Amino acid sequence: MSDKVAMEKIVSLCKRRGFVFPSSEIYGGLASCWDYGPMGVELKRNIKDAWWKAMVQERNDVIGIDTSIMMHPGVWKASGHIDNFTDPLVECKSCHLRWRADEIASDKPRTCTKCGGELTEPRMFNLMFKTFMGPVEEEASTIYLRPETAQGMFVNFENATTTSRKRLPLGIAQIGKSFRNEITPGNFIFRTREFEHMELEYFVKPGTDEAWFDYWVKERFNWYLKLGIAKENLRLRQHGKDELAHYAKDCYDIECLFPMGWSELEGIANRSDYDLTQHAKHSGKDLRYYDAESGERYVPYVIEPSAGVDRSLLAFLIDAYHEEMVEEETRVVLRLHPSLAPMKVAVLPLSRNEKLTPLAKEVYRQLCPNFMTCYDDSQSIGRRYRRQDEIGTPFCVTIDFQSLEDNQVTIRERDSLAQIRVPIKELEQTLQAKLKGERFDATALWATRQKSQ
Amino acid sequence: MSDKVAMEKIVSLCKRRGFVFPSSEIYGGLASCWDYGPMGVELKRNIKDAWWKAMVQERNDVIGIDTSIMMHPGVWKASGHIDNFTDPLVECKSCHLRWRADEIASDKPRTCTKCGGELTEPRMFNLMFKTFMGPVEEEASTIYLRPETAQGMFVNFENATTTSRKRLPLGIAQIGKSFRNEITPGNFIFRTREFEHMELEYFVKPGTDEAWFDYWVKERFNWYLKLGIAKENLRLRQHGKDELAHYAKDCYDIECLFPMGWSELEGIANRSDYDLTQHAKHSGKDLRYYDAESGERYVPYVIEPSAGVDRSLLAFLIDAYHEEMVEEETRVVLRLHPSLAPMKVAVLPLSRNEKLTPLAKEVYRQLCPNFMTCYDDSQSIGRRYRRQDEIGTPFCVTIDFQSLEDNQVTIRERDSLAQIRVPIKELEQTLQAKLKGERFDATALWATRQKSQ
Repeated sequence: MSDKVAMEKIVSLCKRRGFVFPSSEIYGGLASCWDYGPMGVELKRNIKDAWWKAMVQERNDVIGIDTSIMMHPGVWKASGHIDNFTDPLVECKSCHLRWRADEIASDKPRTCTKCGGELTEPRMFNLMFKTFMGPVEEEASTIYLRPETAQGMFVNFENATTTSRKRLPLGIAQIGKSFRNEITPGNFIFRTREFEHMELEYFVKPGTDEAWFDYWVKERFNWYLKLGIAKENLRLRQHGKDELAHYAKDCYDIECLFPMGWSELEGIANRSDYDLTQHAKHSGKDLRYYDAESGERYVPYVIEPSAGVDRSLLAFLIDAYHEEMVEEETRVVLRLHPSLAPMKVAVLPLSRNEKLTPLAKEVYRQLCPNFMTCYDDSQSIGRRYRRQDEIGTPFCVTIDFQSLEDNQVTIRERDSLAQIRVPIKELEQTLQAKLKGERFDATALWATRQKSQ
Repeated sequence: MSDKVAMEKIVSLCKRRGFVFPSSEIYGGLASCWDYGPMGVELKRNIKDAWWKAMVQERNDVIGIDTSIMMHPGVWKASGHIDNFTDPLVECKSCHLRWRADEIASDKPRTCTKCGGELTEPRMFNLMFKTFMGPVEEEASTIYLRPETAQGMFVNFENATTTSRKRLPLGIAQIGKSFRNEITPGNFIFRTREFEHMELEYFVKPGTDEAWFDYWVKERFNWYLKLGIAKENLRLRQHGKDELAHYAKDCYDIECLFPMGWSELEGIANRSDYDLTQHAKHSGKDLRYYDAESGERYVPYVIEPSAGVDRSLLAFLIDAYHEEMVEEETRVVLRLHPSLAPMKVAVLPLSRNEKLTPLAKEVYRQLCPNFMTCYDDSQSIGRRYRRQDEIGTPFCVTIDFQSLEDNQVTIRERDSLAQIRVPIKELEQTLQAKLKGERFDATALWATRQKSQ
């Protein structure tokens, strides 16, 4: 992404190769809703799995949870969402176009940028979707679709810590859908009304919160680096005092260089003891933690790294997108980290041939229980390589006529374009090692190739 | 589950060991909403992963997808949900208790079973949750939370097949949340208003549909068997002609013996060409498939195996639950299939000791990147074994003082209670082989133990 790629190229690749489709497209779509296609769903799964592995599986100080989208309305009263989760809405009195007031520069005259009409005074608009539970609308309880997964961790703090018998510092992690009735969604899957959160609430002893805050800012920044996003496309930005949410003691955004400019990829906030204090007050439950070591009882502070799955997916796609000259043709390649690539291996018989097909299918059947593997036998091998490059498949395995004699196949590497020949019986092991063992640096691999030419 | 376990025992285990908590419990809960705790979220992930592996990864004829919960209202008009997705609601005129009319035996007098009051005539009540998208409620579009994921596959049929360049027969698979405003939810997580679907829409050439229907009924039945549910607790039930949905040509339920009796675990329906025909009509798009082999153009038939994640999770828990006499004490053990067990391994130092702790932590750090591993050093080793039995952990690894000298540890097996001693450097490999390689039959393992005593 050293040369910023246009969003249109990403949207087009996503549609063409089955990453992302407009939702309900045959009905003209639904504003800002998107569906993940066969490649998109795998990429999304891989991002979530990578997060879960780093944040839950490999840590003895974090436990997972999966709470319901529909929660008791008391939760949103206590959290402040019913009263404060609002955006200032202004509307043009002539053409009825709507904006968030805070997105209009304050030095601009208050006239519509589209038709020049006069704008209304801002009014506060709550971003929570509401619905009705129970069979009769008038009587049924009004409930809300959660705008964040975080409250699920706070209201389960006691249940989760007690049953897991762990001590502080302790994190509770969750991945799941959230909903926000945004006034101005946009930029493809960057800001949508339905999206997926990956959130950690890390509970610590007051006084240790600042050190843990620093720790998590670094940890989360490094997570994106490890998964291949170029350092020059990431930066940290500390929130100014005037910008901090009322509950936050400190906050950093991890920003990424998107086509529309630097934008928030993830926020890491020191939420102080705000949430548990509020829930204790509103529920009447004592949510203090008993610290067996010091004999104290206190309300923990919370450090919250909050990321979006869809937004991360967009960042990984944009960063991985490259156009390169190969054999005097432009190739589009997604240099995705192997652990994120939707398909790990493509099995490609040189041609659709009655001798090659059975062997190729046998190779496919051997590999598919271990790796997401695709099988493709249509059109020329060159075009099939390009298709795999476009979806970021790290390895293509080609079965040719020689394979019928020596039981060997060719592995072609996406980044270096190097080809090596391996016995079929060593194929699984070789791919396993390549996918797992090697340090991943697609750019270095590409540079190696450029030099060797 | 040869002796049917009471639901209360399952609910209590789920609460005690962190599988399932009532949602928003500190606020008194929210009717029929449940949260998955640290063990529940892992079990749920494993069930979904097992389904995805069997249904998508290991099949060249199925592709995945992940569509949005909020869809264009036209989808629900075409599918028939706006007009027909209703239950007949009756209410007691005195105490206002509500029922589904079809749940009241028709030979009973129409009086309230609670207070004896008179019941209203049934009125049709739509089960879709509705909400409003856009900033002004009166003008905003009324949209619905999807009551099934299936429509996401139908409206993306063309996008998904075109971009994946595959031919029929071809399946599109999805896992995701669905919502139904049930009049009478209940039986713990069996019937809830918010739940997770695992659905496959398998598109075939008309005329081949009956053979594929039979295939999928068998395939899905075997999936539960392979994952350890006892054959005597599963059965197939064909829908009677009067019971079939208007779009269905045939339908089987896979039923499971739950504590409340035989109930539906999964439905497999032959949906004919109903859905694509409806969407073609309402959207104006030609959704026929061009069959390159025969040169024909036709609307495919659809076979749909539709399962619930939460319901499967309940079935796996109930089936795995056993109480056994071990050393003159009752032990509660979840004989979960190893691939479903929330934790694969528990690392247990014999005691919390300054010499054992560093070695035990080292073993934990070696294992946790490869397996969901838990570390527990509190209370007696006997109690810790019981805790692991209760959450179904297949293997406990014990580090004792001997380990400090010979670098060996003890693996204790959940089902046979056999203990073997292995070098630490072979531990990962040994566990990997045990988890992957062996045919799983917990009951046989337990029987072996009983005989050898």
